Amino acid sequence: MTEDQITARLRRHAPLIGDDCAIIKAPAGKDLLFTTDFTIEGVHFTRDLPAEQVGHRALLRGLSDIAAMGGTPKYCLVSLAVAPWAGERWIDDFYRGLLALAGQHKTKLAGGDLSHASQVVADIVVYGVVPIGKALTRSGARPGDQIWVTDALGGWHHQLHPEPRLDIGRKLIGRATACMDITDGLALDLHRLCLASGVSGEIDYIPLLGKATLDEALFDGEDYELLFTSRYRMNPGMWIGSIVKGEPGKVLYQGDPLVARGYDHFQHRP
Amino acid sequence: MTEDQITARLRRHAPLIGDDCAIIKAPAGKDLLFTTDFTIEGVHFTRDLPAEQVGHRALLRGLSDIAAMGGTPKYCLVSLAVAPWAGERWIDDFYRGLLALAGQHKTKLAGGDLSHASQVVADIVVYGVVPIGKALTRSGARPGDQIWVTDALGGWHHQLHPEPRLDIGRKLIGRATACMDITDGLALDLHRLCLASGVSGEIDYIPLLGKATLDEALFDGEDYELLFTSRYRMNPGMWIGSIVKGEPGKVLYQGDPLVARGYDHFQHRP
Repeated sequence: MTEDQITARLRRHAPLIGDDCAIIKAPAGKDLLFTTDFTIEGVHFTRDLPAEQVGHRALLRGLSDIAAMGGTPKYCLVSLAVAPWAGERWIDDFYRGLLALAGQHKTKLAGGDLSHASQVVADIVVYGVVPIGKALTRSGARPGDQIWVTDALGGWHHQLHPEPRLDIGRKLIGRATACMDITDGLALDLHRLCLASGVSGEIDYIPLLGKATLDEALFDGEDYELLFTSRYRMNPGMWIGSIVKGEPGKVLYQGDPLVARGYDHFQHRP
Repeated sequence: MTEDQITARLRRHAPLIGDDCAIIKAPAGKDLLFTTDFTIEGVHFTRDLPAEQVGHRALLRGLSDIAAMGGTPKYCLVSLAVAPWAGERWIDDFYRGLLALAGQHKTKLAGGDLSHASQVVADIVVYGVVPIGKALTRSGARPGDQIWVTDALGGWHHQLHPEPRLDIGRKLIGRATACMDITDGLALDLHRLCLASGVSGEIDYIPLLGKATLDEALFDGEDYELLFTSRYRMNPGMWIGSIVKGEPGKVLYQGDPLVARGYDHFQHRP
């Protein structure tokens, strides 16, 4: 198949595709959110993962970033470089998985690019909106805030179709002081949130999903739960600790310093 | 270096980077434009191209798409997967080339992603704006329109730093009936424009750049000139032919049918 033939097939699902750019109406009363995330064979997934799940997870990464800001996703752009081992069927299944998740969250495919590489590389852009000035960021945590997660951690690899926490993210607007999604493990991501906020964090308790180990919850990636801070008791939310005054970015677990290591997609060479 | 260290360095040039999404104010009186383009080692460039030029061309592809719609670029997001052969110096030079072109066109780096792959893969997103309802598209060409290009063709590989035709693109608003940028050769791209508009095209004359051959102008990619149609004589613009009634997408060159082949980045396997 040629690029034009594959594009023609995609247009049935995405009538916006066809010009050099997608044209989208600017929203009223909203700020724009943009995020872009790679999904690379050997780094983020292996060949034995069904293509439909690769597509689902590729978009999930972007939707989860929108959730972390309290936003609502609107459009996505999908750039896909296909490896020789991934044929037409694989490409179809990839888009099927991606478009199914997009449809559940009213996110339209607005464009993209298609090419070849020696390994599969997908890059997903999600554009979303959030009420003006209300986006949740990483930098608002203050001493005295409590630290929360949206669900138990460490069990991501047991889940077939993890979901972005978009509903909870929107509810956190005006209630959470800082928020991010957990994609590289609680230890590294809480370190990042504390560093951005200029505070330290103390973890007292970590809720574990199913048979997940503490190490998986602390250092594995891709939980896609939200990590947030608030002055109040939150529901939904599982309490894990408190923000304290101290060295920016420092995190303690039950009194002991926690190394800020986790899943670094850049260090992890395929 | 870790992903966090490289991100920290980039933040000096791009203070927007740091949260899960970039937050951008919605423009008044404008439509939003989005485009995304791969730049892949072995498909779009070879290792002997200086990294600074790889960065320049990676962004150029997106800026040229914005130009083709008559738009003004505002922000870009850069996803870069680095191969083992490309070290810190290469990464620095890549961003230097990209940010230099971005600066010339007042386009801010708003975010991105960083990872590893066995070959270098960059994916660039450009977000731009265009007056509401005024974007140039591929689908407005009508019989009787004249066909134009913004400059002589076929000489792209002699150019060190090809430039996006943003100024001319903006001037074409309200004057051109259809427009696109030439990235896969005149033959394939004019075919696409005629197909989108439901018309045929007749090329009478092709202006060649320097020592470029007719084949290079017709079938090679990456001219980054604009191809547009208009009812009027255009300045600047070099006349190449006319739009006629006929089979949608059919293109004649001096009376003979032209095969709609060109540089297909999808077919061209690395």
